[in-house]
Amino acid sequence: MTVTHDLLKSEPLARVRAAIRSGAYRAHTAGLGAGYLQANLAILPEAHALDFMRFCQRNPKPCPLTGVSDTGDPIMRTMGRDIDIRTDVPAFNIYRDGLLAGETTDITDIWRDDLVVFALGCSFTFEHALGRAGIPVWNVEHDRTVPMFRSSIETVPAGPFRGKMAVSMRPIPKARVDEAIDISRRYPLAHGAPVHVGDPAAIGIADIARPDWGHAAPVGPDEVPVFWACGVTPQIALEAARLPLCITHKPGHMLITDIAEDAEIPIFTP
Amino acid sequence: MTVTHDLLKSEPLARVRAAIRSGAYRAHTAGLGAGYLQANLAILPEAHALDFMRFCQRNPKPCPLTGVSDTGDPIMRTMGRDIDIRTDVPAFNIYRDGLLAGETTDITDIWRDDLVVFALGCSFTFEHALGRAGIPVWNVEHDRTVPMFRSSIETVPAGPFRGKMAVSMRPIPKARVDEAIDISRRYPLAHGAPVHVGDPAAIGIADIARPDWGHAAPVGPDEVPVFWACGVTPQIALEAARLPLCITHKPGHMLITDIAEDAEIPIFTP
Repeated sequence: MTVTHDLLKSEPLARVRAAIRSGAYRAHTAGLGAGYLQANLAILPEAHALDFMRFCQRNPKPCPLTGVSDTGDPIMRTMGRDIDIRTDVPAFNIYRDGLLAGETTDITDIWRDDLVVFALGCSFTFEHALGRAGIPVWNVEHDRTVPMFRSSIETVPAGPFRGKMAVSMRPIPKARVDEAIDISRRYPLAHGAPVHVGDPAAIGIADIARPDWGHAAPVGPDEVPVFWACGVTPQIALEAARLPLCITHKPGHMLITDIAEDAEIPIFTP
Repeated sequence: MTVTHDLLKSEPLARVRAAIRSGAYRAHTAGLGAGYLQANLAILPEAHALDFMRFCQRNPKPCPLTGVSDTGDPIMRTMGRDIDIRTDVPAFNIYRDGLLAGETTDITDIWRDDLVVFALGCSFTFEHALGRAGIPVWNVEHDRTVPMFRSSIETVPAGPFRGKMAVSMRPIPKARVDEAIDISRRYPLAHGAPVHVGDPAAIGIADIARPDWGHAAPVGPDEVPVFWACGVTPQIALEAARLPLCITHKPGHMLITDIAEDAEIPIFTP
């Protein structure tokens, strides 16, 4: 039996997790498990884990580390009471040698004893905070995916991980840009303050109406395009590294944790 | 020639670093290089680096990671223009099998190709912020080392790294405790908000007048003891792990980086 987003969106987290675990829900997680931290995922062999962790430490805005499993352990012990990463994410992408090789809703059959799971904070947290402050967020209000671009900003490399930073763009009313910067800066685990405000060309974006991922968002005459570091960045770095095996969440289909979205630190306490 | 703290304290960072590098200055770094981020250090073999990095990620308040070197590279490329960790710290402690085996001012002769350097944020940053807000910090005003205690709070283990959390105590005027919490919370790379406010016994401290490290600080009748996670915690975890070799800074004798102490992220940009 399949469950829809509409049916789940007012359900408590336990029901949402159960629907995902059973395979009944396989769609995106925006707006689900309200109030709980959601995370991007990268799962890779231990041989590359130290370098990937260095990459995250050196690029904390696009890659804010919120959880790391023990090697071979699929249970995310610091992120919840009972989170098995193999079944508790609606959909995964599987990469082999840096290329997308398939998509699945359960990775139990390909789990290995040398895999390490990395969970990275996402933009939902600061989007909710902007919304609470009455700052309009176009992609949320119109139920679209935020527009994302491959920028000209270089990441700080670590081992085989390197590449340009991906950024997301939200049009913000001119009068509220400073406030939006202050609010998002308070959430270092959700990409923090913007990496650029204004002219898209200054960070290598030729056409703001043609995002590399997601849907275009119109920038009104009284608005400024504001760019935040984006969770697609680690996927670019992972593709560049051409690892024999790497598993990520399917974009938009994230891990919903048991950690409050405004928690000071991303460590679950029962 | 030896240089004193008094001579260096109004000197620019470049002069301070040169004095340390040459061996002319070998004392504590409190109050030196004003405005720049200082860091605690742990240097260990790559075989244990992934677990130590997990330990830091799982215990972000006592162990806020601000920099990680490449394996075998003594240059801290993300923390400054030209920082060679082997010479740019006034004094080091050397541990073998978990026991203090010696002290030195230069580790060039014992450097190895498998070593990884971890830099961790320290409390100076939030102490300066409290001072700017007019909240008295006894240990700073009296030029003493902050009192530190081994608490009953358990850290989240990772591999061989585990143990109790060390905490530092600052007496704060009752009327300003909430403000002190808010201010320090803004500095997640400098231990963040306190881990405990009030009754020392509640976190296993029998006698507030007898710290395990540092100098006792008197708590006045209109003051409350406020406890922050402390950078001695990783040293406890490192001792528990009994690594064949581990090098730390000598307490109080820290790395002074080229990163502004109030920078949003601890990544040096030239």
